[in-house]
This record gives sequence, structure tokens and C-alpha cells, in this order.
Amino acid sequence: MKQFAVIGCGRFGSSVARTLYGLGFDVLAIDSNEDTIQNIADSVTHAVQADATEENSIKSLGMGNFDVAIITIGSNIQSSIMATLIAKELGVKYVVAKAQNELHAKVLYKIGADRIVFPERDMGVRLAHNLVSSNILDYIELAPDYSIVEIASLTEWEGSSLRDLNMRAKYGINVMAIKRGTEINISPSALDSVKKGDVLVVIGHNDDIQKIEKK
Amino acid sequence: MKQFAVIGCGRFGSSVARTLYGLGFDVLAIDSNEDTIQNIADSVTHAVQADATEENSIKSLGMGNFDVAIITIGSNIQSSIMATLIAKELGVKYVVAKAQNELHAKVLYKIGADRIVFPERDMGVRLAHNLVSSNILDYIELAPDYSIVEIASLTEWEGSSLRDLNMRAKYGINVMAIKRGTEINISPSALDSVKKGDVLVVIGHNDDIQKIEKK
Ligand SMILES: Nc1ncnc2c1ncn2[C@@H]1O[C@H](COP(=O)(O)OP(=O)(O)OP(=O)(O)O)[C@@H](O)[C@H]1O
Ligand SMILES: Nc1ncnc2c1ncn2[C@@H]1O[C@H](COP(=O)(O)OP(=O)(O)OP(=O)(O)O)[C@@H](O)[C@H]1O
Ligand SMILES: [Ca+2]
Ligand SMILES: [Ca+2]
Ligand SMILES: [Ca+2]
Ligand SMILES: [Ca+2]
Repeated sequence: MKQFAVIGCGRFGSSVARTLYGLGFDVLAIDSNEDTIQNIADSVTHAVQADATEENSIKSLGMGNFDVAIITIGSNIQSSIMATLIAKELGVKYVVAKAQNELHAKVLYKIGADRIVFPERDMGVRLAHNLVSSNILDYIELAPDYSIVEIASLTEWEGSSLRDLNMRAKYGINVMAIKRGTEINISPSALDSVKKGDVLVVIGHNDDIQKIEKK
Repeated sequence: MKQFAVIGCGRFGSSVARTLYGLGFDVLAIDSNEDTIQNIADSVTHAVQADATEENSIKSLGMGNFDVAIITIGSNIQSSIMATLIAKELGVKYVVAKAQNELHAKVLYKIGADRIVFPERDMGVRLAHNLVSSNILDYIELAPDYSIVEIASLTEWEGSSLRDLNMRAKYGINVMAIKRGTEINISPSALDSVKKGDVLVVIGHNDDIQKIEKK
């Protein structure tokens, strides 16, 4: 079983820590703020108030034995860099760090971070796509040009079967699932038809999806 | 063409603003910080330094004519609430606001926000799922129990066709796409076979996906 250390428990870090713990993993949560530590104490295996830029404190927590450390210190770039360096030097196998911008990310990679994440930037991109059309309910980038999106069914689709709609030929997209209320059909057949209120989960090229977004 | 106002241009807000502008929409970006405004000025239609909690400043920017306002003020909950209230009162049709926590969200809904987002929390959940298995590369929650995930192909799958693998019967999941290097096949046929290094995009029940995560 992998052991996780989450360093910095702001909105992002605490969500990572709680979710990992909820999935059944051992999670050590570290934050320099006492209230933050108190808030998360019941949702992780151990919660410790410590400054992640002080090598000795972090070493004494047995950091070297962790498989994965997630450094989520946000506003203070210098602290994020220090904490990443310390985690790597103490022998953590896989270090994930949150970056503010590309320059910050470059420095983190240079000092040994194995993976960089940009949670605010990524969610900003998703929300924007989501907002440009009231039909597009959710969006995930699959490859630079391909996405999976949730589309609220258009009025003109209602009552037709997937075969009749022929989305593949008409729009170049494939329907992977149909959501109806709390039900989800993850292998819709050609004869299934679209009802008012259905949400279609489709995969396709961004250009083709945009044709529907603009409808 | 919809008109968007983005209020607060931190990491999340600036990403929303840049993406909307990149998609071809008119975007007004507002932030109280001068440097922030200078940084985003070239990536939006208009960038204005203003305090979103001052009704008169915001009114003079013609806020009432915007279709959508996205309030992304983060740390200062009081300012986020004030800015949301002002946007609604000035007649913005659809107000999206970023919340720190559930209580904050509840207040924002009460004063008229049309949609609340939790970008850090949502990305934290995604990263956690992503980390628990080195096979799971990306993760999107589709419904409470169903997800779409990107899975690095297991060694045991290599060389077999989708028909032979019979994922549907074996794991209860459907393969929607196969990524190979920069290529993506969004309508794989039963005869397509999995190669070393392929990434499969699959849809299924979380319980079924977890069986693969744990392999
Ligand atoms: N040196 C440090 N040691 C341990 N924890 C730290 C240190 N510096 C900052 N933190 C903690 O990291 C967390 C995240 O930092 P901060 O709030 O600056 O980032 P943020 O990017 O705005 O966070 P988020 O968006 O995830 O809420 C905070 O809870 C903060 O107390
Ligand atoms: N009253 C206000 N009027 C306009 N802009 C404001 C106001 N208060 C804060 N902002 C701006 O909102 C932006 C986001 O605020 P803040 O940095 O506190 O939130 P955050 O949640 O940590 O941001 P993010 O995680 O998106 O980087 C900042 O650029 C800040 O200058
Ligand atoms: Ca912050
Ligand atoms: Ca991805
Ligand atoms: Ca943040
Ligand atoms: Ca969704």
C-alpha cells in the first residue's frame, strides 16, 4: 500500500489528502498553520503542524519512507521550491508539486520534481469551455485536438434514435454514454433514442465539437 | 456573441479569461491589483484595474450589459460576496462564483449566484484518483458512480485485440478511444489491438475501474 504525504493543506492540498484517505490510503498531512491542521485532523491518518522548509522537522517525520509527496504550497514560490528540494533529498520516490506558472514549474522540474500540476489553470480552461455554450456541461481535454464533452441534448435530437441522428457522419463525434436523471447508460445501442433532458457524453475532434457548441 | 466579465484575475480567473478570449469571445478582465491587470492586458479585450466591491466603479464599466460574470476572488470571502451581489444587482444574467467551502457557496447561492465552482477541490479529487495507480493517467467523474479514465495499457493486454480482451465482460468497462503517441483513434473497432505504450480511454462504474487501478 502506497504511503502519501501532503505538504500544504489549502483548498487543493486538503482535497487531495481527504480523497486519498477516503480511497483507503495512509496520508500524512503537513501544514504550517495550526487551524488548518486541526480542520483536517479527522480526515487523514496523521496531521502535523510543521514548516516544510525546515529540513530537520520534515526529516523527523520520516519523510524518506513515503512513496509520494504532494507539495501544494501556493503563494510562496520560495517555500514551494525549498519543500520540493527537501522532499527529494530525503528520498521520497515520487514528488508532485503545484506550480504558479511555467517559470515556477521549470525550476521545480530542475530540482527533481517528478510531476507538476496547475490546478487553477486547468480548471479555468475547463470552466471557460463549459460556459461558451449552455449545451456543454463538462469538458475534458484528451489530446491537444480531441475532447470528451457532456452535451445537453438539443431539441432537434429529441425522439430520434442514435442511428437516425448519425452523429458520427453528421458531426464526426461518437456518443459514448447517455445520462438520464440519475441513470447512466454506458453502452448505448444504435436503437436507443434521445429524450428531452438527456445528457450525451461524446468524444470527438475539437473542431467538430465546436460546431455543436455553436448551435 | 456572449459578453463575459471576469472579476479577479488570479491563477483561476486569468485562465478563464484567457481561454474565453482565445475562443473568440469579448472578455472584460477586472482586478484590484495593477500588476495583475498589466499581465493580462494583452490576452483579453479590456483589462481594468478596479475594486469589485465598489458598486459605482463596477457600474461605470457597464457591468449590467454583460451576459456572464465570473467572480473568482478567492481568499477574501467578504469581497467575493459583495462582488457577487453587485454583479447580480446590476443585472448580469448569469453569475458564476468561486467558493472556498460549502458555507461560502450557500451564501453565494442565497444572494443570487447562478453557479458555484470549487476549482481547487475538484482538481484535488482528480489528482488523488490519478495518483493511486500509476496506470490511471486522467480521471473525470461522470456521475456519482461512473467515471471516464485514461489507463496506460497493462503488459498483459499488449498484442491482444479489443475483441480478445473483452473488457466489457471481464471488467465491465467500455473502451472509447486508444491513444498512441500523438495519434488518437476515437472509434476503435473490435479488431484493433493494443500495443505497448498505448493509453486506453475507458468508461465504467467506479467499482469496476478500481479493479484495474489495483492491478
Ligand atoms: N512553509 C510551509 N510549510 C508548511 N505549510 C505551508 C508552508 N507555506 C504555506 N503552507 C500552507 O500551504 C497551504 C497552501 O498555501 P497558500 O494558501 O499560499 O496556497 P494557495 O495556492 O492559495 O492554496 P489553495 O488554492 O490550494 O487554497 C496553506 O494552508 C499554507 O498554510
Ligand atoms: N475587491 C476586489 N476587486 C477586484 N479584484 C480583487 C478583489 N479582491 C481580490 N481581487 C483579486 O482576485 C484575484 C484572486 O484572489 P486571491 O489571490 O485572493 O484568490 P485565490 O483563490 O488564491 O486565487 P487563485 O487560486 O485563482 O490564484 C487576485 O488577483 C486579487 O487581486
Ligand atoms: Ca491564495
Ligand atoms: Ca489527459
Ligand atoms: Ca488557489
Ligand atoms: Ca460532470
